[in-house]
Amino acid sequence: MKRREFFRSATAVAAGAVATSLAAPAIAQGNITWRMVTTWPKNFPGLGVGAQKLADRITAASGGRLTVQVFAAGEMVPPLQSLDAVIDGSAEMSHGAAYYWQNKSQGLSFFTGVPYGMTSRELTAWVRFLGGQEAWDEIYDQFGVQGFLSGDTGTQAGGWFKNELTGVADVQGLRFRTPGLGGQTWAKLGAAVTNMAAGEIFAALQSGTLDAAEFVGPYNDLALGFYQIAKNYYFPSFVEPGLATELVVNKSKYQALPADLQEIVRSCSQAAYDDVASDMYANDPRALATLVNEHGVQVRRFPEEILEAGAKAASEVIADIRANGDGLTKKVAESYVSAFNLLRTRTEGTDMPFLAAREKYFKFS
Amino acid sequence: MKRREFFRSATAVAAGAVATSLAAPAIAQGNITWRMVTTWPKNFPGLGVGAQKLADRITAASGGRLTVQVFAAGEMVPPLQSLDAVIDGSAEMSHGAAYYWQNKSQGLSFFTGVPYGMTSRELTAWVRFLGGQEAWDEIYDQFGVQGFLSGDTGTQAGGWFKNELTGVADVQGLRFRTPGLGGQTWAKLGAAVTNMAAGEIFAALQSGTLDAAEFVGPYNDLALGFYQIAKNYYFPSFVEPGLATELVVNKSKYQALPADLQEIVRSCSQAAYDDVASDMYANDPRALATLVNEHGVQVRRFPEEILEAGAKAASEVIADIRANGDGLTKKVAESYVSAFNLLRTRTEGTDMPFLAAREKYFKFS
Repeated sequence: MKRREFFRSATAVAAGAVATSLAAPAIAQGNITWRMVTTWPKNFPGLGVGAQKLADRITAASGGRLTVQVFAAGEMVPPLQSLDAVIDGSAEMSHGAAYYWQNKSQGLSFFTGVPYGMTSRELTAWVRFLGGQEAWDEIYDQFGVQGFLSGDTGTQAGGWFKNELTGVADVQGLRFRTPGLGGQTWAKLGAAVTNMAAGEIFAALQSGTLDAAEFVGPYNDLALGFYQIAKNYYFPSFVEPGLATELVVNKSKYQALPADLQEIVRSCSQAAYDDVASDMYANDPRALATLVNEHGVQVRRFPEEILEAGAKAASEVIADIRANGDGLTKKVAESYVSAFNLLRTRTEGTDMPFLAAREKYFKFS
Repeated sequence: MKRREFFRSATAVAAGAVATSLAAPAIAQGNITWRMVTTWPKNFPGLGVGAQKLADRITAASGGRLTVQVFAAGEMVPPLQSLDAVIDGSAEMSHGAAYYWQNKSQGLSFFTGVPYGMTSRELTAWVRFLGGQEAWDEIYDQFGVQGFLSGDTGTQAGGWFKNELTGVADVQGLRFRTPGLGGQTWAKLGAAVTNMAAGEIFAALQSGTLDAAEFVGPYNDLALGFYQIAKNYYFPSFVEPGLATELVVNKSKYQALPADLQEIVRSCSQAAYDDVASDMYANDPRALATLVNEHGVQVRRFPEEILEAGAKAASEVIADIRANGDGLTKKVAESYVSAFNLLRTRTEGTDMPFLAAREKYFKFS
């Protein structure tokens, strides 16, 4: 009900906004107005809010010379047509996640996150300093768009399960909502994987169509009320060690901007990346405390047997992409694997032993 | 020798630059030129390069309306007078680390990093979303300056040791170069802690004045040649789990900027934070591979006994600040501890178990 009302009022807002932008030409007194379509519901914690904050940042940093109007999912185009809207020029920008466009190139998954793959910091190290951006540009050049990282959820929650999982046997036939390469990984473990939109998950859990569902993490999941039906909240996700969001800009329009506005878009996206990742990191544990203390949620970890089988399955999913992807997908995958193998030496040799010692020995007195 | 030559030529450059800025008034045709003094040697990997890149970013994003000139350590003022230069207005910006100014307020240490404290991502979550920035602003307001995070080394290396450490007994009397609160922590373990400038460490190790030295991590340490004398390179540092850099701006000059330039400074600093942290993360493991494969460096981990005693010592160091600091220092410390206790639940409940499973079970086939 509330969701339907949201879309009705959103449609009205969108129609009004489009009318306004038609009435006022895009360039007036040297000012440009750009439309940012997004794949997120309005005010979606972290990610949708991040899109709005990025738009506001660009508008403010440019003194309004580049004013960015945000359209939530469905306000101008359906969420999964956001990239097409930028390609065909009906919007100048899209804010979403690159793995939504796997049908255009499987290589795009690597810029969002892959099962058992890079953490947020490893991803930025690859994209910014180890060839990731260049590989990404090659894919998006085919479609006349330019991608920038714009946020990250960090390592996600593993999902909401009605029943406790004791091992791989409990996964057989489990009706589990989990999309993308993560879904393929769980399917290899025996789950009956389905995908459905966020707004449909609750009812499917309630009716028994689903036994389990994975969405994002506490900050996003709290509002959706899954805790009312499935009390077992598993941590961490091994299929979404991070989920990066992107800003995509129509490339010819981007290149037609004056150099200062190009730099503003680029730098504001990078600032937004840090901002969203920090927002999620600060607010996930607060939301989790609410779920546990006020809603009786049981926090659990996946059994080792599932983690181990999941790693083998994830490796097979990626091996399949590397073997069967198109040329640019293979190129991206090799760049990713090479950077991953380097960066894990830093994570495992420096970050992890520090954290292990801190967990074991340190507390503030 | 080379260092002296560097400073001689640097002084000449600085004098030239000052003359130019005196000849041309600071505001010409609406353009402003600001001087950024830094605490880093020119082209210092990650951090000094990060200062230059941040200056270039602001200059580009503003289309030259706010042009930032960078002065390496010693070119305009000695590195440890950078903040004073911003306070007295002889420079508009400083790029360094907040803990250099502990003599002004001990609370500033928390915005760089403290022994056994927050990682990079935990720090940004605290500063940006859990009250850290507001607490920082209260301290810097006293001096008429505004601070922004501008970079991070991530978890550092533990240091270069001539001899292997088998336990706390080996730390007694060890002549160890390690500054700040980390130094205080090692002193509690029995080390004879000294501080000295980066350029003096090599000679002190060589002459036997030092038994060990800690600087940053592989990316920065490689160039200084410590591996020629001390072959035992310990990981990780437990006293520098991260080291954030700052951009400090004269507050009245900042507030006098038009709103778009204020936003450009703010957003570019945040972008720079992500950039430097990614640079260090990408290049530390490459430099470490060089140290191990080409220079015969032995990578080691501190014995558990040292990690455990170090945690107790670090807790005492922070407890002392909390008990004896001035009012604002106490306020910052309480904000930090409260955020730390929340954020570690996320790190230990989500990030660490993911990384542990990945290390144990996953590799690309």
